[in-house]
Amino acid sequence: MINIKEDKRLNTLNHSCAHLLAQAVMHLYKDAKLWVGPVIDEGFYYDIDLNGKTLTEDDLNKISKEMKKLAKDGKRIYREELTKKEALEKFKDNPYKVDIIEKISDDEIISCYSQGDFTDLCRGPHVDSLKECKNFKLLKFSGSYYKGDSKNKVLQRIYGVCFDSKEALENHLKELEEAKERDHRKIGKELGIFMMNDLVGKGLPIWLPDGYTLWRTIQNYITDKEITHGYKHVHTPDLGNVNLYKTSGHFDHYQEDMFPIMDLDNEQYVLRPMNCPHHMVIFGNKLHSYKDLPIRIAEIANDFRYEAAGAVKGIERARCFTQNDSHIFCTKDQIKSEFKGVLNLIIEVYKDFNIDITKNKFRLSLRDEEDKVKYFQDDEMWNSAESALREVLDELKVDYFEAKGEAAFYGPKLDILIKPAVGNEVAIPTIQLDFLLPRKFDLKYINDKGEKETPIVIHRAILGSLDRFIAFLLEETKGALPLWLSPNQINIIPVNNEYHLDYCKNILEKLDEFRVKLDSRDEKLSYKMRESQIKKIPYTLVLGDKEKEEGLVSYRKYSSKETVSLKLKDFIKMIKKEIEEKR
Amino acid sequence: MINIKEDKRLNTLNHSCAHLLAQAVMHLYKDAKLWVGPVIDEGFYYDIDLNGKTLTEDDLNKISKEMKKLAKDGKRIYREELTKKEALEKFKDNPYKVDIIEKISDDEIISCYSQGDFTDLCRGPHVDSLKECKNFKLLKFSGSYYKGDSKNKVLQRIYGVCFDSKEALENHLKELEEAKERDHRKIGKELGIFMMNDLVGKGLPIWLPDGYTLWRTIQNYITDKEITHGYKHVHTPDLGNVNLYKTSGHFDHYQEDMFPIMDLDNEQYVLRPMNCPHHMVIFGNKLHSYKDLPIRIAEIANDFRYEAAGAVKGIERARCFTQNDSHIFCTKDQIKSEFKGVLNLIIEVYKDFNIDITKNKFRLSLRDEEDKVKYFQDDEMWNSAESALREVLDELKVDYFEAKGEAAFYGPKLDILIKPAVGNEVAIPTIQLDFLLPRKFDLKYINDKGEKETPIVIHRAILGSLDRFIAFLLEETKGALPLWLSPNQINIIPVNNEYHLDYCKNILEKLDEFRVKLDSRDEKLSYKMRESQIKKIPYTLVLGDKEKEEGLVSYRKYSSKETVSLKLKDFIKMIKKEIEEKR
Repeated sequence: MINIKEDKRLNTLNHSCAHLLAQAVMHLYKDAKLWVGPVIDEGFYYDIDLNGKTLTEDDLNKISKEMKKLAKDGKRIYREELTKKEALEKFKDNPYKVDIIEKISDDEIISCYSQGDFTDLCRGPHVDSLKECKNFKLLKFSGSYYKGDSKNKVLQRIYGVCFDSKEALENHLKELEEAKERDHRKIGKELGIFMMNDLVGKGLPIWLPDGYTLWRTIQNYITDKEITHGYKHVHTPDLGNVNLYKTSGHFDHYQEDMFPIMDLDNEQYVLRPMNCPHHMVIFGNKLHSYKDLPIRIAEIANDFRYEAAGAVKGIERARCFTQNDSHIFCTKDQIKSEFKGVLNLIIEVYKDFNIDITKNKFRLSLRDEEDKVKYFQDDEMWNSAESALREVLDELKVDYFEAKGEAAFYGPKLDILIKPAVGNEVAIPTIQLDFLLPRKFDLKYINDKGEKETPIVIHRAILGSLDRFIAFLLEETKGALPLWLSPNQINIIPVNNEYHLDYCKNILEKLDEFRVKLDSRDEKLSYKMRESQIKKIPYTLVLGDKEKEEGLVSYRKYSSKETVSLKLKDFIKMIKKEIEEKR
Repeated sequence: MINIKEDKRLNTLNHSCAHLLAQAVMHLYKDAKLWVGPVIDEGFYYDIDLNGKTLTEDDLNKISKEMKKLAKDGKRIYREELTKKEALEKFKDNPYKVDIIEKISDDEIISCYSQGDFTDLCRGPHVDSLKECKNFKLLKFSGSYYKGDSKNKVLQRIYGVCFDSKEALENHLKELEEAKERDHRKIGKELGIFMMNDLVGKGLPIWLPDGYTLWRTIQNYITDKEITHGYKHVHTPDLGNVNLYKTSGHFDHYQEDMFPIMDLDNEQYVLRPMNCPHHMVIFGNKLHSYKDLPIRIAEIANDFRYEAAGAVKGIERARCFTQNDSHIFCTKDQIKSEFKGVLNLIIEVYKDFNIDITKNKFRLSLRDEEDKVKYFQDDEMWNSAESALREVLDELKVDYFEAKGEAAFYGPKLDILIKPAVGNEVAIPTIQLDFLLPRKFDLKYINDKGEKETPIVIHRAILGSLDRFIAFLLEETKGALPLWLSPNQINIIPVNNEYHLDYCKNILEKLDEFRVKLDSRDEKLSYKMRESQIKKIPYTLVLGDKEKEEGLVSYRKYSSKETVSLKLKDFIKMIKKEIEEKR
C-alpha cells in the first residue's frame, strides 16, 4: 500500500484536501472551531471542535458533497505571510489556533493559506487549486481528545484520502477494502485466535484456545524439524542481568527499545529483547573442541520490546512475542556448509507452508571494502565469508542481488524479502554472520592444532516471530488455513440431534487423532452449516439417516458446495494424507 | 531431614557444640578472634577471624580432635551475668565482640557462658556439660564475609552438627550423604539438565538441550493429557498491567513476592507471579451461557517471583518457573463432578510417573464455621461445596484427614502431601475452590433461568511447577529416569570405529523415532560404556562383529551387567512398548 506521507506529491495533495475538508465543515457548521489537519501514512485527517456535536454518517455525506462542490468550483490556493501579531488578530476567534500561534517565536514569519472564503494557518506547501483535490474519499470519523490527553475535550476527527486520478483513488480504496478483509486482527477475532485486553496491557496478546492450537502446531513442527536437522533446543529465562546486555553491547545501542530496568537487591534485571546473549552463555558453559562444532543452539523464545502504545498492532507488532531463533557456533571453514544447511532448511520449511521461497527476492548484504571505519577489520574473514555465501547462492541457483555497504559492521547477511498479500515487502527469513559477538563473550574452542580460537556465530531466523508469522499466515489465507494447521479440522453436525447424535458421537470417537468438534446445539442445520463456513473449518460432516444406515460420512469442504459421501476409513485415510502432505 | 533449629533440645545442644568448637579453635590458633556461632537448620557454624589463615581439611581434623578431648574432659558450662561496662572490659581484646556489645542498650543485662578456660558472650541457653556434646561432626568450612558484606574481611566459617547419641548422628550423616547424592543440582549438572550463570542472573535456570528434551516431553505429555480431558490450553503474556493485580487483590497481599514494577509510558507493568488474573480475563472476554460450562482453561505458564538470592535452589526454587496451571469455571452444581474429574486426572497422571498418589496423605482444608470474620460469608455455598468434596473423597476411597479452619478465606482446598526421598513432605497437587476471585473480575454467565450468575472457580495444580517437579523426579530416581522421559534413550557404541561404524549408523537411522546417540569418538570401548552408565542412558547398544554379521543388536540396560542380543525389530518392539507403558 502506498504511504501517502512519504510520497512528496501525494503529501501536498492530501494536505490541501484537508483544507478543503475544513472549508466545507466551516460552511456547514458555523460555530465549528478547527484545530489541526495533518497528513498521515494513510491520507489525512482534521480535528475539529463541533461545539458538542457528534458526527454521523449523514454528516459525512453532507461534508463530502460540499467538498465536491468546492473542488468543482476550483478556487486558487494562495499563500500569505504575517507577523505573529497579525496572525493572532486574524485567528482571534479560534482559541486552538491562538494556542498554536502563541507557541511560535516572536520573530518567525507565520504563513496562511487561503482559498475563496477560507483561510487556515499553515506551513504549506499546497497545490495551486482546489480543482486538483477532486478525487478524494472521506474514510471514517471518530472522537479524539484535544492534544491526545483524555483529560481534555473530545474533538471530532474526520479521515480522508486524496489522489490525482479517479483510477488511482479507486485502486487505493480497493486495496484498503482488501486489507480490511485480510486484517489479521479481524480474522483473529472471528476465528477466536487471540484477544487483547487493556487490563492485561497494551500490545500483550492473549492466545485463545484455537489460537494456541495453531501456535503449538507450528511450535512443535519447527522444533521437531530443527531437531532432525541437528539443532539442540534449549529453554532460557525471559530476563537477564543488565550486565549480560552490557557485555553483548545491546544495552548501549538498544536500550530505548527495551523494557524498563528492574532493581532487585543490588542488581539490575531487564526483560530480554533478544536471545543471543543467553545462547552465548550456553556455549561458554564449557570449553569445546573443534570436533564438537558446529553446535546449533535453538529456542522458541519469548522476547520483549518496548513499542509505543500507538504502534502496536495485534500479533504483528506486539510488546511480547516468541522467536523461532537459533545461533550456530562454527569454525571459519564451516561457514559455507552451515549457510547452505540453513538456506536448505528455510526452503524446506516454507514449502511446508505452501510457499516456494526461492521465487522471492534474496538480498545479500555485503561490506563496502573501501569503508575502513564501519566494518570489523579482518579482510581475510570478510572475503572468505562473502565468497562462501555467494557460492552457496549460486549452487542453489537462487536469484539474488548484492547490497554493497548494507552489511552490519560485524558480518554479512542474507535477507529473503516476502511480498505479503497486503502491505510492503518484509524480510522474514534472515541469516546473519557475526564475527564480533563471540569475541565479546570471550568464547573459545580448541582447534585442531590445540590452540584456543574464537568461533563464528550465525544468527538465523526461519519463521521469525511465531506471532508475526501467524499474522502473516492469517492474512495470506484469509483465515482458511490448510488442514494441518487448522485449529478445528473437522466439524460434525447431526442432521437432527434427536435421531443422529449417537451416530455423530460414534464417529467423533473414531476421529480422535484429529481436531474435531461436534456441534450438538439446538440450532437449525443451515445455521450450523453457515457457522462452520464462517469459522473456516476445512471439513464439515453432516450426518443423517443415510449416513447412519449405510455407515458413511458425508463431508463438505470449506468454500465448496459439493457434498461427498464415503466410508469412514476412506475419509480417515484421505484426511491423514492431506495432513501429512501439508496441503 | 530433621530441622535442628526448630527442635528445642537439638537447638541448645548444637549451640553448646558451637562453643566447644570455638574453645578448640582458641586452643589451637592463639590469635584467632571469634565473631558469632549461631544454630542453623542444618546444625551450627562459627565465624572466626584466623588472622589471614585459610583453613584446610587438616586443620578441621585437628580441631575435631581437640573438640573430642574437651568433650571427654567434660567441663561444666555455667552462666555469668555482667553489666555492659564489665562485658566491654572482659572482651576488650576482641573487636568483633566489642562491636556486638556496643549495640546492646546500656541497661540490659549481658550474659556469658564459660567452660574451663573459655568464655563466650552468649544469650544461651546451653547444656550443662561439654560431655553432652561428644556426638558431633564438623561438616565443612568456607570463607565468609564479615557481616555478609563483600567489602569486609573474609572470616573462616566452620559448619558442624551435634546429636545426643552416636546412632542419631550416624543416621543423620547417612541422610546427609543420601541428600547430597540425590541433590538435583548435582544430578542436573552431571546429566546436562540445566546450568546457572551469574551473568544471566541469580535464580534463573537455563535449560540445556537434554534438560529441555525432558522438560518438553513432560510439557507435551501433560498438555495432550489435559486436552483429552476437555481442557482448553491458552497462552498468555508473562506480564500484566498492575491494575490486573489490583483487581485480583494480589497487589495488596503479594507484592513483596513480586518482581519490581516497570513504568511504561503512563502505565505500570509487572511480571506475573501467577496466572489466575489472565485466565479470569479470558473467561470475561465473552458472556457465557450455562450450557458452555464447565470451561477448563489451562496453560503451561511462566511465572516470576522474587526470592532472596540466598533462598534460590537450582530448579527447585527459582525466580522464574513454569506452572502446569488451570482454572475451571463451573456452576455450583458442577463442583462435585469437576472436583472428581480433577482428582481422577491427578491419580492417572501420577500413575504415569510410577507414583500411586492415593497412598499419600490427602489434607482437606475446611472453614471453621464459628469464625465469622475470616471466611467469605455464604454458608450454603460452603456447606454444599465441603460436602461435595467429602463425598468425592469417599467415593474414590482415598484416605484423607480434615483440617478445620485451614481453608483459605475464599474456599475449601485439597492438598496431596508427597514425602520425597529427601526432605520434608510437600504439597504438589492441589485443588482450591474460589468463590471470590470471579466476583472481583465481575464474571458472569447466564443461568438456565436467563439470569446473570457468578461462576465458581477451581484453581488446580497437577504437576505444580514443571521445574520443581523435574527437580523432584531427578531426586526420586537419582537421575535414572524411565525410558519415556530419558533425554537420551539409547546410546550406540561401535566395538571398533573402523569396522563397525557403518553398521552403527545403519542402526541409528532405523531407530529414528527414538532419542538415540551414536558415540563414535576415538575413545576406548570400556571408557564409552562407563560414560553411558554415568549419563544413566537406559539402553546402551554395543555393536561389533557378531551383531554386524548376524544383523542383531546387543544391549545392556542401565545399571545391569547383563548383555542381551536380539533382532532389531524385536528391540524396537520392546522399546516402543516400554515407552508406551511409561515404565
